[in-house]
Amino acid sequence: MEDVQSQPDHRGIALDRVGVSGVRLPVVAEGQRTVAIADLAVSVPAETKGAHMSRFLEVVEPHRELLSLARLPLLLRDVRAVLEADHAEVAFRFPYFVAKKAPVSKATGWADVEASLEGSLGAELSLTLGAVVPVTSLCPCSKAISDYGAHNQRGYVHLDVTPRIDAQGTAAPLTIADLVRVAEENASAPVYPLLKRPDERHVTMQAYDNPVFVEDIARGVALALREDPRVAAARVRVVNQESIHNHDAFAEVSWTRT
Amino acid sequence: MEDVQSQPDHRGIALDRVGVSGVRLPVVAEGQRTVAIADLAVSVPAETKGAHMSRFLEVVEPHRELLSLARLPLLLRDVRAVLEADHAEVAFRFPYFVAKKAPVSKATGWADVEASLEGSLGAELSLTLGAVVPVTSLCPCSKAISDYGAHNQRGYVHLDVTPRIDAQGTAAPLTIADLVRVAEENASAPVYPLLKRPDERHVTMQAYDNPVFVEDIARGVALALREDPRVAAARVRVVNQESIHNHDAFAEVSWTRT
Amino acid sequence: MEDVQSQPDHRGIALDRVGVSGVRLPVVAEGQRTVAIADLAVSVPAETKGAHMSRFLEVVEPHRELLSLARLPLLLRDVRAVLEADHAEVAFRFPYFVAKKAPVSKATGWADVEASLEGSLGAELSLTLGAVVPVTSLCPCSKAISDYGAHNQRGYVHLDVTPRIDAQGTAAPLTIADLVRVAEENASAPVYPLLKRPDERHVTMQAYDNPVFVEDIARGVALALREDPRVAAARVRVVNQESIHNHDAFAEVSWTRT
Amino acid sequence: MEDVQSQPDHRGIALDRVGVSGVRLPVVAEGQRTVAIADLAVSVPAETKGAHMSRFLEVVEPHRELLSLARLPLLLRDVRAVLEADHAEVAFRFPYFVAKKAPVSKATGWADVEASLEGSLGAELSLTLGAVVPVTSLCPCSKAISDYGAHNQRGYVHLDVTPRIDAQGTAAPLTIADLVRVAEENASAPVYPLLKRPDERHVTMQAYDNPVFVEDIARGVALALREDPRVAAARVRVVNQESIHNHDAFAEVSWTRT
Repeated sequence: MEDVQSQPDHRGIALDRVGVSGVRLPVVAEGQRTVAIADLAVSVPAETKGAHMSRFLEVVEPHRELLSLARLPLLLRDVRAVLEADHAEVAFRFPYFVAKKAPVSKATGWADVEASLEGSLGAELSLTLGAVVPVTSLCPCSKAISDYGAHNQRGYVHLDVTPRIDAQGTAAPLTIADLVRVAEENASAPVYPLLKRPDERHVTMQAYDNPVFVEDIARGVALALREDPRVAAARVRVVNQESIHNHDAFAEVSWTRT
Repeated sequence: MEDVQSQPDHRGIALDRVGVSGVRLPVVAEGQRTVAIADLAVSVPAETKGAHMSRFLEVVEPHRELLSLARLPLLLRDVRAVLEADHAEVAFRFPYFVAKKAPVSKATGWADVEASLEGSLGAELSLTLGAVVPVTSLCPCSKAISDYGAHNQRGYVHLDVTPRIDAQGTAAPLTIADLVRVAEENASAPVYPLLKRPDERHVTMQAYDNPVFVEDIARGVALALREDPRVAAARVRVVNQESIHNHDAFAEVSWTRT
Repeated sequence: MEDVQSQPDHRGIALDRVGVSGVRLPVVAEGQRTVAIADLAVSVPAETKGAHMSRFLEVVEPHRELLSLARLPLLLRDVRAVLEADHAEVAFRFPYFVAKKAPVSKATGWADVEASLEGSLGAELSLTLGAVVPVTSLCPCSKAISDYGAHNQRGYVHLDVTPRIDAQGTAAPLTIADLVRVAEENASAPVYPLLKRPDERHVTMQAYDNPVFVEDIARGVALALREDPRVAAARVRVVNQESIHNHDAFAEVSWTRT
Repeated sequence: MEDVQSQPDHRGIALDRVGVSGVRLPVVAEGQRTVAIADLAVSVPAETKGAHMSRFLEVVEPHRELLSLARLPLLLRDVRAVLEADHAEVAFRFPYFVAKKAPVSKATGWADVEASLEGSLGAELSLTLGAVVPVTSLCPCSKAISDYGAHNQRGYVHLDVTPRIDAQGTAAPLTIADLVRVAEENASAPVYPLLKRPDERHVTMQAYDNPVFVEDIARGVALALREDPRVAAARVRVVNQESIHNHDAFAEVSWTRT
């Protein structure tokens, strides 16, 4: 049977990445069973027609229930080998749950964040752990200029963090829970799945006592990550669903340890 | 050339609606040029194989720049005639803009709502005007139980309103601006595209002075629509992007004048 | 501490449903661990101000890992009792995976469908099992009028099926896998996560040998469900991502056993 | 009234971009009235607390109905001046319509693409014109290995093209229609809003006669752009909604003229 994908190509154009996207898979990530959307790709040299797409689904299978920063390099090596490529890239996005206690009643519920594990392997190995963490933000300007009240809203802290990788190729042990903590510590208050009335009173006043602009959250998170020796680089983007506007406000900063 | 769609079908199953969906079109709605997503459909009797889909695109063309509650019956009649069907249904969803003045500075900006025009024509004519209106809501419970502050957030009021149709088949003259007004009047405060500091102070205190639950907004809107003689039926759904939770709160009520 | 939600309301408007939406939860559905988006609601009588939203999160907890058609009535009874309401409604949407063998190579991969479990309990109990099943459809018209080739595309079969409920309140044992099977049997071919070249040859010719309009798929599925004694009612909506157009084609039919 | 945003910040972290996102606006782009989603941002130096967000809405107003590659530099200069910033960034995404004639019947309909205009102005000026163009792709492998038929599907060609800018700061006159043409010329066939049966026969056979992998489309588009002297750099990403799979296939290549 003819193998069209293996035929030569004569246009002289190497492709940066060729692969499958939007692949939904049952996975275990950081030990938690969840459902991921995966993108898997390789580079294709100028003289080759294309990639054998079905192999991506095969090569991911033995890694699917072991996803973590520590596992990604092994998956990337396999992708590169099985697809016979110079450069491999993988990305998994998945909901991740943290059990969260309400501040006064201690009632517990499941807080979800959108997490991600991404990596690429070419001349170098690069890894990224990501999370989109919902928080409360309360506007300092609104508080300062009003006789009472202050507008507040749900905000989302997007963190994409590159861990340090040591000489043995081992990534510093960053976890999704670390990213959640740093996001919540720099907002006006965390959000919770389950709050009883004494809890609601607590978080209402906590937010009013800790007003922060979207810029403040971004800076606070960036500073905390910079002080964490496990972090080699980070991109922080904070988006507030402004409660007085029908558009969002955002602040973004990227940083690489030198 | 063979006309497969016109062949008979022997399974004895009439189809409720067959058509095209996700058709993006440049339109003029209530006199405003915008971009709509259209769904157009007809019923197909048990003995007919299918609908001639390309005709939907042709039949909508002369109506495309004249969309309104008044125009929908003419479009529905054309769809029914050209597709040779008993029952026709059309739906257009589109952004609609209202120029909005800030409350103190009077600075003007463009406020957008997601609007819709829907209709069906079978044994009877039915029309619906819809809008999804962003508002501010401030929680009465949070205000009552806290020493200071109160959580607030952006909420969305979804209105689907059926106008009265008189004996001549003319719909009562409801407009998108009517729906925006009734939604905003029953929230804690409107949202604005553009607010200077004195405006921000104003809306912060306005919201604090008008705390409403998601249930209150739904009831207030339902009551206002019931008192409007142009309205024959309505469905109201209010969704709050709770600023202290990572999920939404909602309230819904449907009502038909009897 | 003041309980604002329990105060009386004087506007005389009962609310159809009040609750939480977009609640993401780790669940086990039909025995499979996955992640659901849940909406949970109750009716609120005219004289009551609102629902105690935090209770929804508490009441779902003991049912969360046991979701099925058989379990929904117990959850609904609990929601009604804990929220002190006349009418309760719950809906869970979640990805569900089926291991699928390629037709020739027998290579196995994970096929995902978007599934749902919904129920309401008021004067009566109502249950719905849903699935959105991707399939291949190949156009009979295109095949008939062309000298060679035929346009084909991915289609989605949306099934919402109400099982029969016996005198003891037990739902007929319908499963998500049942819905997947009936959708695939009425399309031109199934879609697969993983196909090697002999498989691709097989499904290409299978689709060409089984051309169906979007109307045919809807009718075939409706007929199959009608012949299944476990089914009391069904709604079928088929949407084709037309490969020759930038919009979709769809067909829809609802049916209730009488 | 206190101006909190203008207060100094002491954390020593400059922000890459601070602004508003998801701003929906009525615009005129390349002379066509449509609706855009805008993101507008500036850099914020380490010692400044934040940006005055309301100014973004004011500064965009006089440019809103004149959007084009030629206009972006003027808008960027105004953003930088009014926000008192070193670096400004703007992005507009909007549906754009092209009147399209069916190949045989010449029946005309409106084809929509998702277009974008983006720019940044710091030490240098950078501009990008983008389009997401739907096309038909037919698989060469499926055609080669099957006795009859071939799987095909809708694909989307994402083009982000940087025009050459001359010494006077004038961008080469690239248009959205140019991007649509290059995408369609490198696919198996264009998609159309409106096809009569002789047209459907034509495009069915046209696609069968022009099989291309997702890799081929990416390479063909990249090559065409490289041969266009107006183009300084380009990023091409092609995504096929594989009709035999429930995931997509993609190919991507970036290129900068040196």
